[in-house]
Amino acid sequence: MEHKNTLLTLAYDGTDYFGWQRQEGVKTIQEELEKALSKLLKKEVNIRGASRTDAGVHAFCQLAILKEPHTIPINRLALAINSALDTKDIVVKDAILVNDSFHPQNSVYKKSYSYNIYNAPFQNPLCSRYSHFVHKPLDIEKMRQASKEFIGTYDFKAFCASKSMAKTTVRTIYSLDIEQKDELISINITGNGFLYNMVRIIAGTLIDVGLSKKKKEDIKEIIFSKDRQRAGKTSPACGLILKNIYYNLD
Amino acid sequence: MEHKNTLLTLAYDGTDYFGWQRQEGVKTIQEELEKALSKLLKKEVNIRGASRTDAGVHAFCQLAILKEPHTIPINRLALAINSALDTKDIVVKDAILVNDSFHPQNSVYKKSYSYNIYNAPFQNPLCSRYSHFVHKPLDIEKMRQASKEFIGTYDFKAFCASKSMAKTTVRTIYSLDIEQKDELISINITGNGFLYNMVRIIAGTLIDVGLSKKKKEDIKEIIFSKDRQRAGKTSPACGLILKNIYYNLD
Repeated sequence: MEHKNTLLTLAYDGTDYFGWQRQEGVKTIQEELEKALSKLLKKEVNIRGASRTDAGVHAFCQLAILKEPHTIPINRLALAINSALDTKDIVVKDAILVNDSFHPQNSVYKKSYSYNIYNAPFQNPLCSRYSHFVHKPLDIEKMRQASKEFIGTYDFKAFCASKSMAKTTVRTIYSLDIEQKDELISINITGNGFLYNMVRIIAGTLIDVGLSKKKKEDIKEIIFSKDRQRAGKTSPACGLILKNIYYNLD
Repeated sequence: MEHKNTLLTLAYDGTDYFGWQRQEGVKTIQEELEKALSKLLKKEVNIRGASRTDAGVHAFCQLAILKEPHTIPINRLALAINSALDTKDIVVKDAILVNDSFHPQNSVYKKSYSYNIYNAPFQNPLCSRYSHFVHKPLDIEKMRQASKEFIGTYDFKAFCASKSMAKTTVRTIYSLDIEQKDELISINITGNGFLYNMVRIIAGTLIDVGLSKKKKEDIKEIIFSKDRQRAGKTSPACGLILKNIYYNLD
């Protein structure tokens, strides 16, 4: 039986990659996957991702659509691609069939990211690949209070890198909570979509709050200013993990 | 002021190393640290570790003693060594002065290890450096019950690799508990000392229990048999983390 429109769910360690999207002369997740699929299906294969993660960003749950028809049994496809991959940095976790109307961007209605911070006097080499190291003590309670100020529908232009091409900078954040386990702090954020570098700038702003450089009361003011200069720094890519992508199948 | 007998606390990602102990022709943690210290103190420096971790094993808290006299202020030493290290895989977290009687093995009275298992249908590339992947579902409750059977003072010969040189195979396990967070399972074990591969063989045995290949009732029988063949496999090094070393300062 021939299958077309296959939706792949995948996880990756982005440390050694120039992000998701294929680019000339650098190693990307998309290219590695396309190489594996081309080997498997014995023809040139292109896929399309639901989210363009940046260089060094990780994913626990990225989506990619494969439009190329194939005859590999769908319940064997993830394992077959994993065997064809030249790296252990990328793992296909699931493959399902979707119909023609499925679009990797338009069918998505919600995304979740986590931003990990390792907060201790010294770096932990067992955490450094997947977290941003902050050696000054962070006041988590202050960060928790400030985080609630982001929830809602706002123009998040102040939290968007200038090179963004987005048509509108209005986004809705559904939830933002901060989890702590020993020295590891995770900022968990869910929204209907995120602007370029938005999660990393929110993380940088919340770190400023944790260091008492900014106050909870500043957050709304920064949002309403629409001024990128008022928000915190863009926190490093290594701390960012694309956690989940929610989509409609019809 | 000249200092001697400095005790270093360090963490490392052991993935790319042939273990702690210096060996001809391979990269080891001890050698990397000695290289950094030699550069810093401008003379050949030797250190001695409290625990010989195997190839691929990690440490959150290893101890090493530096007997070479030096004049670096003790509260600046950890940072100075970290700057001199050629790698980010190793971090010195603390340095304190100890007296002549301190011995990196004899002064230690308790050690803790964690053994991490990632239990899901597919591997997670964000966990694979620091956990052993088991794709068949594990029954954690059975593992928890069986884990209690190890607590106490026993001859653990059945849980010791044959190439061990230990004078006695009697050890005391003070605690063994199993933590679960989503797909990640951690076996946390504390004892007065551990035989060669002991934690990894206990982990392999508990995995057998989780897979219903062994029962809680088998554990004591295996211990009393003193027969290595009766215990489970030696689980891979990547899952093992030396968590803590407890010592007396007098």
